Amino acid sequence: MQAVIFHETLRYVQDHPVPGPEKGQARIRVNLAGICRTDLEIMKGYKGYKGILGHEFTGVVESCNDASWVGKRVVGEINAACGLCEWCMAGLGRHCPNRETLGISGLDGCMAEYCVLPVTNLFSADGLSEERAVLTEPLAAACEILEQVPLQGNERVVVLGDGRLGILCAWVLATVAGRVTLRGHHRDKLELARWRSLETSLRGEGIEPGADVVVDATGSGRGIEQAMDLCRPRGTIVLKSTVALQGEVNLAPLVVNEITLVGSRCGQFSHALDMMHRFPDMPLERLITHRYPLHQALEAFETAQSGEALKVILEVHKG
Amino acid sequence: MQAVIFHETLRYVQDHPVPGPEKGQARIRVNLAGICRTDLEIMKGYKGYKGILGHEFTGVVESCNDASWVGKRVVGEINAACGLCEWCMAGLGRHCPNRETLGISGLDGCMAEYCVLPVTNLFSADGLSEERAVLTEPLAAACEILEQVPLQGNERVVVLGDGRLGILCAWVLATVAGRVTLRGHHRDKLELARWRSLETSLRGEGIEPGADVVVDATGSGRGIEQAMDLCRPRGTIVLKSTVALQGEVNLAPLVVNEITLVGSRCGQFSHALDMMHRFPDMPLERLITHRYPLHQALEAFETAQSGEALKVILEVHKG
Repeated sequence: MQAVIFHETLRYVQDHPVPGPEKGQARIRVNLAGICRTDLEIMKGYKGYKGILGHEFTGVVESCNDASWVGKRVVGEINAACGLCEWCMAGLGRHCPNRETLGISGLDGCMAEYCVLPVTNLFSADGLSEERAVLTEPLAAACEILEQVPLQGNERVVVLGDGRLGILCAWVLATVAGRVTLRGHHRDKLELARWRSLETSLRGEGIEPGADVVVDATGSGRGIEQAMDLCRPRGTIVLKSTVALQGEVNLAPLVVNEITLVGSRCGQFSHALDMMHRFPDMPLERLITHRYPLHQALEAFETAQSGEALKVILEVHKG
Repeated sequence: MQAVIFHETLRYVQDHPVPGPEKGQARIRVNLAGICRTDLEIMKGYKGYKGILGHEFTGVVESCNDASWVGKRVVGEINAACGLCEWCMAGLGRHCPNRETLGISGLDGCMAEYCVLPVTNLFSADGLSEERAVLTEPLAAACEILEQVPLQGNERVVVLGDGRLGILCAWVLATVAGRVTLRGHHRDKLELARWRSLETSLRGEGIEPGADVVVDATGSGRGIEQAMDLCRPRGTIVLKSTVALQGEVNLAPLVVNEITLVGSRCGQFSHALDMMHRFPDMPLERLITHRYPLHQALEAFETAQSGEALKVILEVHKG
C-alpha cells in the first residue's frame, strides 16, 4: 500500500505491506489524514519515532472481529493503552506509561491507505462531514482545557497564537467564557478565526492585562512570558506549547502573582464529538487551507512547514 | 534610633528618626527581626527598594490610637493594602496593586528599634516564644501551600531544597500528607529537619519518581527540572523559587504529563499562628542557627549570605 514513512528522511512509498488487524484491532481504510505540528517535531527527532507518520484521520472500518464496526465511518483515539495499569483504571489511558501512540510511538500511523487501532479506540463519525471528522483529534486537545480549568462563564480569556491550535482553543473557550480574545500576528488568520463573539487582537495592538485565563498556544518559547504579562494575580495560564524555553526566562511572576500554570495536551474524543454536534456552526472546515493527494505528501509537508498553512490535509481515499 | 538601611550599600546607623505612628498605625518596639532571602535579593536590586530592611519581626506595641493594643506582643502581616480595591474586597490584600510592603516596597522595614504598621496588620503573639513568633511570616508562606493545593491525606509529597523555606514547607505538609520526603544536599540540614514521620533524602541517593505533589523550594533555576522528573502525570508542582531560569529549560514535560504548576508566595498570618498553636512540638526554633545584636547587622548579613546558616536573627530589644 501507499504510505508516508519517516526514517531519517521523509519518504512516500507504494509497497508497504497492509497491516493487521490482530485480535481486538480494526483495520481502517483511511480517507483523510491531517498533518500536525507533532509530525514536524518527529522529523526533528521527537520521541525517536520511526515508521508511518500521522495520527489525525477519518476513515471506514474495513476489517474487524466485531462485525458491527465493519463499514462504519470512524475517527480514532490515538493512544493505545495497556488497559490494566492504575492510569487506565482511572480512565486516563492517555497517560498510561505502557501506551503506544498512533504515528508517534510504537504504532504505525495513519498517513497510509490503511491503519490499525484497537477497536476500543474507535468512535463513530456518523453525521459529521469528513472535513470536520478529521479535526476531531486537535479539537479534543482544545476541549481538554475545559476539563482542566472549570469556567463559570464570566471569565475574560486571552488565547495567544493564531495557528490552528490557538484558533481551536479560542472557539472552544468562546462556547463557555464571557469574553475571549485571540491574539496573533497574522491578520488573515485572525480574520478567518472570527466566530460568534470571539474578539481578535493583532500583536502590537494594545491589549488589556488582567485576564483570568491565558492560553499559550504560540508554539514559541517566549509565549509564556507574554502569558505572565497578561494574566491577573491568582489567574490561570494554560500551556499548550511544548517547545523548550530559550535563554533566560524569569518565572518569578508566577510565584509573586501566585499564578497556576496548567500543562494541557490531548483530550477525549467524546468531548470533541459532543462539541461538534452541539455547535454545528463552529467553522472547523475553514482551518483546512491546503489539500494534497497522498502521493504528493512531501509537497504537503513542505507547505505545513512553511507556516503559511493552517491545516494541511492528505487525501487518501474518496469517502 | 538604630536601623539597618539599604541604599546602594548596606549600612547600620544610629541616628535614624523614630517613625510615626500616623492615624490607624501602630508603632512597634522590635524585639527580634529575621533575615530573609528577599532581603538579600533587595541588595541585588530587587524591587529597587531603598530604606530600612526587614519584614520578619516580633515586638511590642508601643504607641497606637487603639489603646487596647498598647503593650501587646505582636507579629505583623507585611502587606499594607489599600483596603478598597477588588483584591482587598476579596480578602486578597496581599495581591492589592496599591499595596506597600514592609521593608520591601514603600514602607520602612523592621530591622530597627521601631517600625510602624497599620493596626489592621497586627496579630497577637500571646502564648508564643519570641523565637517562634519571629518565624510567623516564613511559616505563613509554607502554610499557603495547603490553601492552594488541597490535600486528602494519602498523597506522596517531595519537597526539594533543605533551606529554611524547604524545611518549613516539609513540616507543614507533614501535618497533612501521608508521606513527605525532604530532599537536599546538606546532610546536617536534613538531620536538623527530622520531625514526626518526615523522611529525608540526600541528593544523589535514589528517590522514587511519581510523587503527587513536588514543592520546588531550591531557590535554584534548575529546581523545576528536578520537580518535573519526580512529579507524576497530572500531579502538582508548587513553585516557591523566584529565581530566573537560566539557559534552556524544556517545559514540555509539563504539557505532555499535564502537570499543574502552582506559583506560591506568602500566606496568611492567621494560618501560621493556628499551625503553631496546633503543633507546639513543630521544632521551629531549630531553624534559628545564628543570632546577632542589631549593631552587628553587617556581620549577620554576611552569615546569611554564606549559605551555612538556616535562619539568622537580629536581636534588637530584650523582650
